[in-house]
Amino acid sequence: MNYKMICRTLGNIVMLEGVLLLLPALSALFYREWRILTVYLCTAAAAVLCGFLVSRLLRKCDKTIYAREGFVIVGLAWILMAAVGAVPFVVAGDIPSPVDAFFETVSGLTTTGASILTDVTALSRGGAMWRSFTHWIGGMGVLVLMMAILSDSTGRSIHIMRAEMPGPVVDKIVPRVKDTAKILYLMYIALTGLEVIFLMTGGMSFYDALIHAFGTAGTGGFSVRAESIGYYSPYLQWVVTVFMLLFGVNFNLYYLLLIRKFRSALRSEELWMYIGIVLVMVAIVTANILPIMSSFGEALRLGAFQVASIVTTTGYATADFNLWPNLSRTLLFLLMFVGGCAGSTAGGLKMSRVGILFKCAKREFGKLLHPRSVTTVRFEGKPVDEATQSVVTHYFAVYAFLLALIFALIGGEPFDLETNLSAAISCFNNVGPGLSAVGPTGGYSGYSAFAKLVLSSAMLFGRLEIYPLILTFAPSTWRKR
Amino acid sequence: MNYKMICRTLGNIVMLEGVLLLLPALSALFYREWRILTVYLCTAAAAVLCGFLVSRLLRKCDKTIYAREGFVIVGLAWILMAAVGAVPFVVAGDIPSPVDAFFETVSGLTTTGASILTDVTALSRGGAMWRSFTHWIGGMGVLVLMMAILSDSTGRSIHIMRAEMPGPVVDKIVPRVKDTAKILYLMYIALTGLEVIFLMTGGMSFYDALIHAFGTAGTGGFSVRAESIGYYSPYLQWVVTVFMLLFGVNFNLYYLLLIRKFRSALRSEELWMYIGIVLVMVAIVTANILPIMSSFGEALRLGAFQVASIVTTTGYATADFNLWPNLSRTLLFLLMFVGGCAGSTAGGLKMSRVGILFKCAKREFGKLLHPRSVTTVRFEGKPVDEATQSVVTHYFAVYAFLLALIFALIGGEPFDLETNLSAAISCFNNVGPGLSAVGPTGGYSGYSAFAKLVLSSAMLFGRLEIYPLILTFAPSTWRKR
Repeated sequence: MNYKMICRTLGNIVMLEGVLLLLPALSALFYREWRILTVYLCTAAAAVLCGFLVSRLLRKCDKTIYAREGFVIVGLAWILMAAVGAVPFVVAGDIPSPVDAFFETVSGLTTTGASILTDVTALSRGGAMWRSFTHWIGGMGVLVLMMAILSDSTGRSIHIMRAEMPGPVVDKIVPRVKDTAKILYLMYIALTGLEVIFLMTGGMSFYDALIHAFGTAGTGGFSVRAESIGYYSPYLQWVVTVFMLLFGVNFNLYYLLLIRKFRSALRSEELWMYIGIVLVMVAIVTANILPIMSSFGEALRLGAFQVASIVTTTGYATADFNLWPNLSRTLLFLLMFVGGCAGSTAGGLKMSRVGILFKCAKREFGKLLHPRSVTTVRFEGKPVDEATQSVVTHYFAVYAFLLALIFALIGGEPFDLETNLSAAISCFNNVGPGLSAVGPTGGYSGYSAFAKLVLSSAMLFGRLEIYPLILTFAPSTWRKR
Repeated sequence: MNYKMICRTLGNIVMLEGVLLLLPALSALFYREWRILTVYLCTAAAAVLCGFLVSRLLRKCDKTIYAREGFVIVGLAWILMAAVGAVPFVVAGDIPSPVDAFFETVSGLTTTGASILTDVTALSRGGAMWRSFTHWIGGMGVLVLMMAILSDSTGRSIHIMRAEMPGPVVDKIVPRVKDTAKILYLMYIALTGLEVIFLMTGGMSFYDALIHAFGTAGTGGFSVRAESIGYYSPYLQWVVTVFMLLFGVNFNLYYLLLIRKFRSALRSEELWMYIGIVLVMVAIVTANILPIMSSFGEALRLGAFQVASIVTTTGYATADFNLWPNLSRTLLFLLMFVGGCAGSTAGGLKMSRVGILFKCAKREFGKLLHPRSVTTVRFEGKPVDEATQSVVTHYFAVYAFLLALIFALIGGEPFDLETNLSAAISCFNNVGPGLSAVGPTGGYSGYSAFAKLVLSSAMLFGRLEIYPLILTFAPSTWRKR
């Protein structure tokens, strides 16, 4: 295990987080929140200083890393990021309890959007900005950002990228990892900027537009309004709907569009699966809620918003779907598992994984009838080899066991089973709201500190797709070979 | 496709069911229910006659069958059995609605024990006997029974046995299929008889003892008391607890005990896993409910009973666990998925499948760290080859998709999500009771006819482990090669 390189990278991450803390400081300055400004500036300075020192001290280390260093770096970096990011919340008094602040920061970074706040409007302007900004940072991944900026990443840093990026298969879109990271972040920034413009066109202030663009881009879901996006005009609700769906698409496709490979982009099976599922779900939910709405337009707007919000695991709300008919609630509940496309900022199992799983399942029937025949599973036009199939089906088994464990661990909490189960599922899939007491109008404040830590782990497991975190804490990872 | 052999076997099955209908007729005779007696005798006569005619007409057919005929025979036989078995309920007026009667018969045959009856004590004696007897028939499997009795089964009938017996790997315990079937049924009868004796020692009438022994043996759960086993003395509750657990064990182990291979029997990893899970769960649940019980003895008795009832997917109750603390409810909910051992009469995923899944999941971590290393998954002391691993992990994927589909299909029913979800899970895993409105004191009578048919299919899918039923209705099965 290359300890020095791990520490050095962690130092870089903390330094980077310090720089990122300047944005909330800027907000605090703008809104003249002097105490908040001091807190964020001090935290930023401390983080930059510590990170710089560690990184500097270890600058001459051997930079070779392997898969296991990649997993460990990602696992530790995310925990460290969350711990450091929670500090200003506690010190500034926005979220006095350290456990609550850690939960909220994890929820932000993992783009979950589950909140322990009972009154979101009581947050300071700077605090609310940092809270939403964590969504944006966590969406594309902070290590990817580091690779895009710092020049010392070796050819081996693909191991880190693989461990941080979601989806069953992660590959570089251009030969160099650094360039891939840069392209991804440039597209991410451009798309976020575009949303800010659209939101401001609809009358949102620059501050609100930034907050909600960050929340949408990371498919997170934190807002500064108690009514979430329901506070804003129908036009703004549609803008957010469209952008949530856009951020649920694999970013590789945007790159293909940029380099004018329109055909390849539109041939993506995952994209069509995504579009198909969204359209069908919007149609069913709209029809299902039509009787309790005042017009078809309203039903379509609310139906489309909630479907987009859940399938992309954003978690914004324009209506309390807890009060909707059973069928809609059931379908939204099931959608939480699916998630967006691989290589997007969305959580969940991911479209491609569900697609491959489904095709594997289908092939089993053929195998039973004709045991000796050779049938291949095809996805994205290419055959999926046995190894990838095994990775996907095994991942699903790990996923199910972990979900059962999370659910069992919070099983003793004083909420009904629907609340606990949907809380476990929602946090694990990085959605945010669940059903019943943790629904769009509820929150996670009623859970015990133990349950909050369990759910924080669930969010991290979900965002990093399980393996990096488990490997970080597995003794066998640290054993010498 | 060998249509003639399929029809011939179905004829045999109906004939056999006719003979089995004589037991409720006997009960009706004993209790002087003349109308019920007539109904059961007529149904029996009609079934025997029709079955005999079909079987006789096709007696010279080609008896060769392959895997696909095996699946189709099992799929069709179970649906036919349920349809024929529902007739006397409707005609005798015990369950006037055909859909309800079909649901109840499927629930009986699949050893689920979910009921649409609101007052079980209103049943005729003959009807109640038939209802419970279906548990016993379905537990070990009616086609296995046919193979044990009829002599015309060819060496190929292993295909039928494989399709009907639960568990990831089905093998003959002795070289001939017919002998295997015979041995299984003799052990089944002996164990049932033993329970009848123990129950009568505790003061149960012969009729009640038969009813509850059938319900336990098939791990079904139908009773003739509104309070289920809670009606009886603590001694009787313990007897049922022990026998539920015994019927959840792989019958191959009993055979090993019979031929004095004690070591091999006790080396069974699945057995130890089963014992371990039961002990841990009983300990946790007992501790969890202790505060609301009058004594430790009572807590242990009720805790052990409910855990045994759910893990073996029997579904008997001595307490309404809906009123228990959250942790117990959560654990019982999760136990519904696990089920008993493969090769037992229990439902669920089965211990061995869960065990193999868990080990496959664990191995993934090793693979990530050392991609090129060769690690094998071992179960029951033997390495599990890639093919079996793939069968198990793929089965799990199919299982999850089907469960989601069942849940979505009944999603529109006017019950809370906890009721619908637990109903889908309970029926699919052949447990019987669920949570909330379908809990131990509730029932399925409130569901629409459509939902009852969906849940009936779920029970059949669960008992036959999905494939036979899907293949029966897949067009590709019937296509000529």
